[in-house]
Amino acid sequence: MEFLGLKLTSTKQFPDKASIEFVLDTANKMEPYASGKKYTEVLKDKVIATLFYEPSTRTKLSFQSAALRLGAKIISETGIQFSSLYKGESIEDTMRMVEHYADLVIMRHPEKGSADIACSALTRPFINAGDGHGQHPTQALLDMYTIRKEKGKIDKLKIALVGDLKFGRTVHSLCYLLKFYDSELIFVSPDELKMPEKVTEELKKNKVKFSEVNSLDAVLPVADVIYMTRVQEERFENRDDYLKLKDSFILTAELLKKAKKDVTIMHPLPRLKEIDVSVDAHPGAAYFRQAGNGIPLRMALIAMLLGREKMI
Amino acid sequence: MEFLGLKLTSTKQFPDKASIEFVLDTANKMEPYASGKKYTEVLKDKVIATLFYEPSTRTKLSFQSAALRLGAKIISETGIQFSSLYKGESIEDTMRMVEHYADLVIMRHPEKGSADIACSALTRPFINAGDGHGQHPTQALLDMYTIRKEKGKIDKLKIALVGDLKFGRTVHSLCYLLKFYDSELIFVSPDELKMPEKVTEELKKNKVKFSEVNSLDAVLPVADVIYMTRVQEERFENRDDYLKLKDSFILTAELLKKAKKDVTIMHPLPRLKEIDVSVDAHPGAAYFRQAGNGIPLRMALIAMLLGREKMI
Amino acid sequence: MEFLGLKLTSTKQFPDKASIEFVLDTANKMEPYASGKKYTEVLKDKVIATLFYEPSTRTKLSFQSAALRLGAKIISETGIQFSSLYKGESIEDTMRMVEHYADLVIMRHPEKGSADIACSALTRPFINAGDGHGQHPTQALLDMYTIRKEKGKIDKLKIALVGDLKFGRTVHSLCYLLKFYDSELIFVSPDELKMPEKVTEELKKNKVKFSEVNSLDAVLPVADVIYMTRVQEERFENRDDYLKLKDSFILTAELLKKAKKDVTIMHPLPRLKEIDVSVDAHPGAAYFRQAGNGIPLRMALIAMLLGREKMI
Repeated sequence: MEFLGLKLTSTKQFPDKASIEFVLDTANKMEPYASGKKYTEVLKDKVIATLFYEPSTRTKLSFQSAALRLGAKIISETGIQFSSLYKGESIEDTMRMVEHYADLVIMRHPEKGSADIACSALTRPFINAGDGHGQHPTQALLDMYTIRKEKGKIDKLKIALVGDLKFGRTVHSLCYLLKFYDSELIFVSPDELKMPEKVTEELKKNKVKFSEVNSLDAVLPVADVIYMTRVQEERFENRDDYLKLKDSFILTAELLKKAKKDVTIMHPLPRLKEIDVSVDAHPGAAYFRQAGNGIPLRMALIAMLLGREKMI
Repeated sequence: MEFLGLKLTSTKQFPDKASIEFVLDTANKMEPYASGKKYTEVLKDKVIATLFYEPSTRTKLSFQSAALRLGAKIISETGIQFSSLYKGESIEDTMRMVEHYADLVIMRHPEKGSADIACSALTRPFINAGDGHGQHPTQALLDMYTIRKEKGKIDKLKIALVGDLKFGRTVHSLCYLLKFYDSELIFVSPDELKMPEKVTEELKKNKVKFSEVNSLDAVLPVADVIYMTRVQEERFENRDDYLKLKDSFILTAELLKKAKKDVTIMHPLPRLKEIDVSVDAHPGAAYFRQAGNGIPLRMALIAMLLGREKMI
Repeated sequence: MEFLGLKLTSTKQFPDKASIEFVLDTANKMEPYASGKKYTEVLKDKVIATLFYEPSTRTKLSFQSAALRLGAKIISETGIQFSSLYKGESIEDTMRMVEHYADLVIMRHPEKGSADIACSALTRPFINAGDGHGQHPTQALLDMYTIRKEKGKIDKLKIALVGDLKFGRTVHSLCYLLKFYDSELIFVSPDELKMPEKVTEELKKNKVKFSEVNSLDAVLPVADVIYMTRVQEERFENRDDYLKLKDSFILTAELLKKAKKDVTIMHPLPRLKEIDVSVDAHPGAAYFRQAGNGIPLRMALIAMLLGREKMI
C-alpha cells in the first residue's frame, strides 16, 4: 500500500495486515518526538490545513499537536458558520482553493460521504478526520496502536465492542482493521443498536470469529479488551429512544471485579456516564493513554503521506 | 511609493503603474517559496495578527499560509462574538492593544471605513483584508497578478467585469489599479447594479476606455478576460431584488462557445451559480489558479511592508 | 517559591515579595525579545495549549504572542460551543486528554473555581487566564510590572483602585500581591460594589494601610496611581443596577487637572466609558503600555514554568 500522496478516507482502504503494521511501527518510532523527548523539524517546509466543520476539540488538537511536533505549519478553520461552505460554496470548490494554500488537508465534516466528495476534487494528500457517521480512520488506527501497546499484540485476544454499534463510526472503522487479525470479537449492544450487517458480512468474509450479546455482564469474565463507546444523542432522531438506552451500558469499578485482572478498558472519548469515574484508577483504564496515542499515530500518518517518515 | 511600514487600506493609494508592477514583480519572485519548492524563514522574528471580524475562509487561510511560508508567526482572532469589539471596545483601542502583540496587522471587518479607523490609531504596518463594501486591495492586486500571468500583459486587452458592479468592492478596487493600464473595460451588469460614478469618473480622468452593457452575450466574442462576480445576497436590503437578479449573469460552457479561444475566466470566489461547473474544464478557467496566486502576492506584500523583500 | 512545573491558579500562591520580584525581574529580561529586537527559539520543542472557553481577545492574543516570541508551538481552542465540554465532558477529562497534546496548559473559563478543578486532574504546568469572578493572576502580575516600570518602585505609593471592586477579579488578584509592599491603597467604589471583606482582611493581616471612599474627586490630589476598572454588565443580575452605576466613575482630562502631575493611569482593558478618550493624550495614561507589558510578563512566566528562563 502506497502512503505517499494517499487520500485516507476510510479504513476499508487497507488491503492487508502488513499495511496496518507498517503504520503502527512508524507510530512507535514517533514516540520520543510525540512526547517531546526528541525534536524534529522534518516538515518545516510544509503547510497543513485542518478544516473542522464540526466541533471536535480532541481530534483537532491532536492533529495540530502531531503536525507541530513534526515542525509543520498549520492553517485552520473551525465551525461551519465561519466557512465558505456557509456561503454556499461546494466542498469541491473549497478543496480546489485550499490545495493552493496547503500541502496536506485534514477535514472533519458532519455529513457522511463528504470526505469522498472532497477527495474527488483534491490533488493533495488528505486525511478524513471524521465524516458524520461515515468513517474516522485515524481513530481506528490509534485504537489498534493502543491495543498493541497495552496487550503486546492484536492477535489471540477477546475484544468486546460495547454500546452504540449501529451509529458508532469508530467501531465500524475499527472492525475493517481487526478483520485482518486473529482475535475474537464480541459485540455488546441493545438490539436497536446492533452492528450493521455490512460490517458483520465483512468479518465473515475474513473468517473473523464474532458473537453478539446484549449484556455487559456476560462478557466481563472473558474479555481481554473492553472498548466502550458513547451513545450519542445527536445520532438519534427520537429523544425518547436515546434516554431509554443511554444508561444501559455503564461500566463501574464494581462491575470490573468480575473482569479479567489484566483487562484493558478503552473509549474514544469524550465519555459521558458510560464509564464511571470509579474506573479511572484501574490499571487497565487505558482511555486517556489511548487519547495520547493519537499523537504518535497521527505524526506517523502525516509524515508518511508527505513521504518524510524515513527522514526521522 | 514607500512600502516599508505602509498601511494598505485601498488600491487608491497606488500613485502609478510602476508601484503596481513592483508588487507584481515581487510576487513573481515569491513563487518558488509559495509553492513549497524553496523554503525561507525570513520573517521568523515577526508576529503577524490576522483579525477576521467577518467570516472569510479563503482570505484568512490565504494570508496565514502566505505569512507561514515566510516563516512568520501568527496570532489570530475570528468572529466578532469572540472579540473585544463585542464587549463594546472601539476599533482604535483594539489596535492600540494589538500593536504591542504583533509587528503587522491584517484586518477584515464588516463595516466600510473600518480599515481607515483602525489605521488612525495604529503605528504598525497594516493590510485591509476587506472592509464591508469598502475596499479589498490584496484581492485587486492578485487579480492584476493573475491577468499578467495568464495573458503575459495587462495592456492592450479587453477586460469584461460582470455581475454586481454596484456593491462589489472587488471590482471597484480592481478599477483603481486598471486605470493606469492601456486596456479597455467593459462593464456588464443589470441597470440596478451598475458601476458607481465615482469609479467611472476616475477612469475618465485617466482616459481609460470603457463601455457599459447589460448582457453577457454581447461581450463574449470580444473579451480577452471575463471577470465574473457573485451577486451577494447580504448586500441587498430587499430579498426579492436579490432573487430577481442573481441568476441573470451565469456563464456556462455552452455560452463560452461564442467566446475567444484564449479567453481567461476569473472570479474572486466563492462562486455560487454564476459560473456553471461545466466551465471548470475550460483551459481558460483561471479562478482556482487565481485563488492560488493570492499566496505569492500576499507573501510579497507582507515582506515588503516589513522591509524584508530583498532578503529572499 | 518553585516555578518549574507550577500550576498558577491564583496570586494567593505567592508567599512573599521576593517571589513576585523574581517574576518581574525575569519579565524585564524578556523585554528585547518581547519587542522583537532580539530573537529566541528557547521553547521550540514545546507545545502550549491555549483553551479559551470564554471570549477574550486581549488575553488570548497576549499569551499566544508571548509563547510564539519564545519559539513555542501553540494549539488552541476558542469558544465553549466548539469544545468537548459542550458535549458534556468534564473539565478533568479535558485536562487528562490535553496533557498528552501539550507541555503547558493555559485556560480561561467562565466559572469560578474551574482553574482548581482543572489542576486537580492535570500533571502539566498550568496558567489560569481567568476563571469567572475568581482569579486572573497574570493580569495582576503585569499590573505590578507596569507600576514598577512607570513609577520605578511599588513601595511608598498611594494607589487608588476605582470602580467595581466587588466583582472585579483583577483588583482582587492585584491586592494579594500588593499586600507584600509598603504602599497605601485607596478603594474607590459605590457602596454596592465595595472591596469584599476577604480581601480587606488579608490586607489588615499584612498591615497594609488602606481606606475606602466613594468619590473619585477625593483621591485625585493624592494618588500616584489610579487603577480604573470596568463596571461589567455581565456581573450584574439586575440590569437597572448596572445602568445606575456604570457611569459613576468616569475619568476625564478635565478631572485629571486636579491630579498629581506625574500620576499614572491604569486599566485592565477593554475600557468602555470609564476612561474618556480625552485622557489618552496624558503622559501618565499607561493603559496601552500596560497591555503591552503582558508580553514580557507572560513570556517570563511561561519560560519559568517550563524551566527555561535561564537559557535566554
